[in-house]
Amino acid sequence: MKPDETLACPWTLSRRANVMQSSVLREMLKVGGPGIISLAGGLPAPETFPIDAFSAACERVLRNDGAAALQYAASEGYGPLREAVAAMLPWNVAPNQVLITTGSQQGLDLAAKVLLDPGSRMLVEMPTYMGALQAFGPMEPQPVGVASDGEGALPDDMADKALGDGMLENKARFAYLVPNFQNPTGRSMGEARRTAVIATAARTGLPLLEDNPYGELWFDQPPPAPLASRNPEGVLYFGSFSKVLAPGLRLGFLVAPRTLYPKLLQAKQAVDLHTPIFTQRVVAEVIRDGFLGRHVPAIRARYRVQRDAMVAAIRREMQGMDVQFTVPAGGMFLWLRLPVGIDTGKMLSESMARGVAYVPGAPFYSDGTGLRELRLSFATVGPAQIDIAIAALARTLREALDQSIGPQ
Amino acid sequence: MKPDETLACPWTLSRRANVMQSSVLREMLKVGGPGIISLAGGLPAPETFPIDAFSAACERVLRNDGAAALQYAASEGYGPLREAVAAMLPWNVAPNQVLITTGSQQGLDLAAKVLLDPGSRMLVEMPTYMGALQAFGPMEPQPVGVASDGEGALPDDMADKALGDGMLENKARFAYLVPNFQNPTGRSMGEARRTAVIATAARTGLPLLEDNPYGELWFDQPPPAPLASRNPEGVLYFGSFSKVLAPGLRLGFLVAPRTLYPKLLQAKQAVDLHTPIFTQRVVAEVIRDGFLGRHVPAIRARYRVQRDAMVAAIRREMQGMDVQFTVPAGGMFLWLRLPVGIDTGKMLSESMARGVAYVPGAPFYSDGTGLRELRLSFATVGPAQIDIAIAALARTLREALDQSIGPQ
Repeated sequence: MKPDETLACPWTLSRRANVMQSSVLREMLKVGGPGIISLAGGLPAPETFPIDAFSAACERVLRNDGAAALQYAASEGYGPLREAVAAMLPWNVAPNQVLITTGSQQGLDLAAKVLLDPGSRMLVEMPTYMGALQAFGPMEPQPVGVASDGEGALPDDMADKALGDGMLENKARFAYLVPNFQNPTGRSMGEARRTAVIATAARTGLPLLEDNPYGELWFDQPPPAPLASRNPEGVLYFGSFSKVLAPGLRLGFLVAPRTLYPKLLQAKQAVDLHTPIFTQRVVAEVIRDGFLGRHVPAIRARYRVQRDAMVAAIRREMQGMDVQFTVPAGGMFLWLRLPVGIDTGKMLSESMARGVAYVPGAPFYSDGTGLRELRLSFATVGPAQIDIAIAALARTLREALDQSIGPQ
Repeated sequence: MKPDETLACPWTLSRRANVMQSSVLREMLKVGGPGIISLAGGLPAPETFPIDAFSAACERVLRNDGAAALQYAASEGYGPLREAVAAMLPWNVAPNQVLITTGSQQGLDLAAKVLLDPGSRMLVEMPTYMGALQAFGPMEPQPVGVASDGEGALPDDMADKALGDGMLENKARFAYLVPNFQNPTGRSMGEARRTAVIATAARTGLPLLEDNPYGELWFDQPPPAPLASRNPEGVLYFGSFSKVLAPGLRLGFLVAPRTLYPKLLQAKQAVDLHTPIFTQRVVAEVIRDGFLGRHVPAIRARYRVQRDAMVAAIRREMQGMDVQFTVPAGGMFLWLRLPVGIDTGKMLSESMARGVAYVPGAPFYSDGTGLRELRLSFATVGPAQIDIAIAALARTLREALDQSIGPQ
């Protein structure tokens, strides 16, 4: 073989690959190192992982069903796990509408494949979950931000944007919503907003994608019933074991309208044949006999204490600095809006130098706004570290404010 | 809510979803039941799964690194597993060129996203792995079959079809090849064919996708060096633990040219963030200290005995019936070409009635030929059942032949 032949590098990238970008969020997860307290990641507290229960379940699954747990399996998912998922959801779900996915992130990839053509309009909240924009991106849709308030998407703007220019072929393919303790803002839709969103969607013929990874992490009272429970054939629902058991298993599920299920299943077959059956069987074994009912309250209690610590620290350290935030009623995230003139993207390196990582707000918006906003996670570290981190962040902010009002 | 609102069913499917079909192969895996011997599935023999080794590894991983094994992890995959993969491949591979995937099937999905636009021409062997056509399908390429013989793709036809009409934008984006013990035919490329394929690809600027799930399952001698070892920057390589350990883990990997790796990684992030880290760590633990070097020879020995049983049974039972086949030198599959006039799709129900399942040949071709061909797996059942199954298949064939030459 001649050298020029071996050096031939003939790859042509697809159009979608040319515009793909690495996730800011995934890059942020790598941030850390000695002396850095990271409030940036979306990592659940590892102290909540039920390691002993997993260990016992692995042993039982391999002893009782070892060969089946290591063999190829059905694309739909493990039957008893589908039944357990259907039973734990707060509306009448048939197990055969449940599709087990490799993380709920995979569910978004499947939905994009089944529902989006290049140029399809699709609606997202402002701001929205960055990972969803990433999952939808390869199908080359056109994301349209819906005006949002402290409860998420505003129904009237959603209706306007659903219809677009009025041409049937330009109607939005769906609206993607995270009604409970949204990532990144921590906000939730109340009962009245849910009623209005469902009515608006029905009136305008707008399908909904409801992503609910955080719904079980409520602090005072459970959130209102899911959108899917109010119109099961008009809502594609996504859930996850990442926040109530452990994210490293990549175990999620979707509950699909009957018209969509067969196509989502075919897309699933093509992607990875099925989600690892060993982890499906282990989780089915772990959650038998009401395990989650005993386990999840401990996660809620921990995150509530940490949320309280973060809220108290922000009030204490950022007093009089014109910082806005709403107290999240659950989940993992708190969203800050800093005074006019602050750019949280630019402030990050200074914050890191003071030992605190966060995620700047702009990447969560589809239109590049959100420059003075940022996301903090109160899930990963305990109250003492939260106090230290917020104090350091406040010092960083104070310095940035001093500079921005100093001599020009 | 008025009834007509709840009944609204507003979903619009994407163009690709409208043409998606359920995998014939996946449907066949469901075939079975009392009295049916299935030679249809691509299931490894469950007796080869190292259940005790898995059990011990699960226990150790959870005891030593439980929190990390259940937490979010890097999209690239678990470092020590990437190193182990690089070390076990028979050419100089850097660990940072290895991307761990959720089965090698997922690698095909990622490659399709990064390399195919709607209408892109891509070359496949005739016949080819159906799952690859399924994985590529959602990106809406135009599959082009390359004339193939008992060693796979013929270089001259590959060159003609790589260039197509000569317009640069219509050049094939890649050729997808399975050089070792191909699914479905069991055929392999010899040394001379590999040299010719690599030279042809370099000369015509044709990128290659090399899928190698079966390469370790050789019976007499290892196959010639992989295509990727001959031009690492021109070949995207896919491997799998499904056939040497267990498929239920869905653990595969790809080795990417440097120009492609970042884009494949971004596509991977968007699909499922990362492959389950728990199973990655468990497999890294299982294969430490040369486990595969002791384990894989036992799989080879078992499948060789079963191949021999199948070949002997075919020769015995189908003598004088004008049945063609080549003896596979490894892998899991044997391919039969039956006499003119037989339609293996139509013959299947009769075969099932006699207690034997196989996969008809036509779905493996991108052009609908292969009507008188069929695939048999010799991996899943032992010699005694193989004898029974081949005898029943021979009776079915004899009856079909009698009918096809009977009074018209």
